[in-house]
Amino acid sequence: MPDRIYNFSPGPATLPQEVLAQAAQDIVNFNNKGIGLIELSHRSKEFMAVADEAEALLRELLAIPANYKVLFLQGGASTQFAMVPLNLLGPGQKASYLNTGTWAKKAIKEANLVAEAHVAYSSEATTFDHVPKNGDYEVDPAAQYLYFVSNNTIYGTQFADFPKTEKMLVCDMSSDILSRKFDITPFGLIFAGAQKNMGPAGVTLVIIRDDLLDRAPANLPTMLRYKTHADKGSMFNTPPCFAIYVVGQVCKWLKAMGGVEAMEEKNKEKAALLYGMIDSTDFYKGHARVDSRSLMNITFNLPTPELEALFIDQAGQEGLDGLKGHRSIGGCRASIYNAFPRQGVVDLVDFMKRFEKAHC
Amino acid sequence: MPDRIYNFSPGPATLPQEVLAQAAQDIVNFNNKGIGLIELSHRSKEFMAVADEAEALLRELLAIPANYKVLFLQGGASTQFAMVPLNLLGPGQKASYLNTGTWAKKAIKEANLVAEAHVAYSSEATTFDHVPKNGDYEVDPAAQYLYFVSNNTIYGTQFADFPKTEKMLVCDMSSDILSRKFDITPFGLIFAGAQKNMGPAGVTLVIIRDDLLDRAPANLPTMLRYKTHADKGSMFNTPPCFAIYVVGQVCKWLKAMGGVEAMEEKNKEKAALLYGMIDSTDFYKGHARVDSRSLMNITFNLPTPELEALFIDQAGQEGLDGLKGHRSIGGCRASIYNAFPRQGVVDLVDFMKRFEKAHC
Repeated sequence: MPDRIYNFSPGPATLPQEVLAQAAQDIVNFNNKGIGLIELSHRSKEFMAVADEAEALLRELLAIPANYKVLFLQGGASTQFAMVPLNLLGPGQKASYLNTGTWAKKAIKEANLVAEAHVAYSSEATTFDHVPKNGDYEVDPAAQYLYFVSNNTIYGTQFADFPKTEKMLVCDMSSDILSRKFDITPFGLIFAGAQKNMGPAGVTLVIIRDDLLDRAPANLPTMLRYKTHADKGSMFNTPPCFAIYVVGQVCKWLKAMGGVEAMEEKNKEKAALLYGMIDSTDFYKGHARVDSRSLMNITFNLPTPELEALFIDQAGQEGLDGLKGHRSIGGCRASIYNAFPRQGVVDLVDFMKRFEKAHC
Repeated sequence: MPDRIYNFSPGPATLPQEVLAQAAQDIVNFNNKGIGLIELSHRSKEFMAVADEAEALLRELLAIPANYKVLFLQGGASTQFAMVPLNLLGPGQKASYLNTGTWAKKAIKEANLVAEAHVAYSSEATTFDHVPKNGDYEVDPAAQYLYFVSNNTIYGTQFADFPKTEKMLVCDMSSDILSRKFDITPFGLIFAGAQKNMGPAGVTLVIIRDDLLDRAPANLPTMLRYKTHADKGSMFNTPPCFAIYVVGQVCKWLKAMGGVEAMEEKNKEKAALLYGMIDSTDFYKGHARVDSRSLMNITFNLPTPELEALFIDQAGQEGLDGLKGHRSIGGCRASIYNAFPRQGVVDLVDFMKRFEKAHC
């Protein structure tokens, strides 16, 4: 086994080595203060500076306008599936949803528990092998928002262009936030679990337009109200300090790498290497339709499940780890988020060539 | 500033140095696997073993019976304030609450948002300087449970003996779990944020009797149902992996120190040193009534607010940090959880003597 493996896991996922090294140091002795990072009071000036810096870097990297709040919450994207309709839909109101995979379906289920979700489009009949284009669906005229998942980790599909509608957009950006440049202003709310492209598990980023903070009904529990957290700068209760710290460190690293625009170029190039390999042969078959391909999660199949199992096992022995596809569709998946090194992709392509030669 | 300060913060709080050193190593390279701890998929066999070990150690240390589930959740104790009544109270049902401080009050507020909280006792009139004894209050005959906070961090009070009632107990044990031996069987549910006595911020332990899992109404959002997490071993969605790992490491350390019974003796001795100092003079005055004193948080005042500010400042210069009382009552507070070293208490007592001599 090499010193450091290439970790193709879909999340929690690879983080920059520099960030891990810095975290290791700060956990034992933060800024040489004689106290560990995770021992710091969340109300200490040291930790407040950590949280402020993380927010400032996110605002800079994503060009978040001043009328949006940046929140660090707990409970994962799965909790957001409920918080979004609980906060944004009043009695009798509804929203349109694009069903492009497992995570969209879960969000639709939660919305229907508390209000009404109109499914404007579904790609389920073709095993979620694509995302819709503008014109493929109609948003309900009464919808309060259009909800979509920008990148579908399990199926390896991604919206290259975001939906265009007069309705406000709400987006689960868990698996491609910070991977490319985009305009936030059509969005009312964006959320993202950190553990794919931004940090460790345990913190969820919410970006919310501030006029939406007052919509929640009076009997909604305090911790489920966005306003609770917005009013207190995510410090209403003890926040997930370590995870916020790592997000800040990842943002620092991302900025040093040239920001999201530079990262987008690198992501395109990494993905092109793998899709190029897949398209050069009939041995490997991509799951996603070409026009819906994800730059983050590359899903593909081999001729038989037996060959797929062998492929995953032998790749693992070469330090190419975590290539097993999600249990719901099987096959193989290479997750290559921002922090995943180009060399790992090159090595995987090389392995794919050798494996094909040996088994075709 | 010494190499390592004594951190009297109420939470996040001091952790064992051995645990921090191990975490630093594992963050960069977990078990020499060539992958960092926070990069591991939560479904990898490596992380599953981490979570299983944390649960097994908690079960062993707290002697948790087999008919209780152990859950690792997100959102802090503040989210539990709502989840408890949302899951345990049906329409028109109520529960009795003992109002012994800020955290109890917050729990009462959340219960009243979704059901009815009967306040069986309140010590608010005397600034929460004590907790009630059995016989001081009556539980509502229609109550589904009696809710109390075992240790009140802000006011420095603690239940030396738990309430005795025929009703099932529900307890917020955030600030004294694992500090002493107790019998779990009168409890229906216990919860505790990790960041005081158990680990870093970001994970909340819930111990729930399994017959209570089916009480939640059908329209409760999935993530707010205890059953969701119980059915999936806290892996319904990505759990806060790092925080769970640290809880496991702290439990390992605690077991090596002799378990909760040995820890209880140490805690009694540390607290006795400080209360002995306070009782030996009129210069320092304890906030809590003697019969309600906490072994975890020692609250006290000096003759004037000016002297308190000077005391906190000068102590800080000697590496005795975090002694400022909570903003709601002012004064001083020394939080001395399990991992707080005896020597730090000895040093504080010595400083208190010197400070008194210089200023009385």
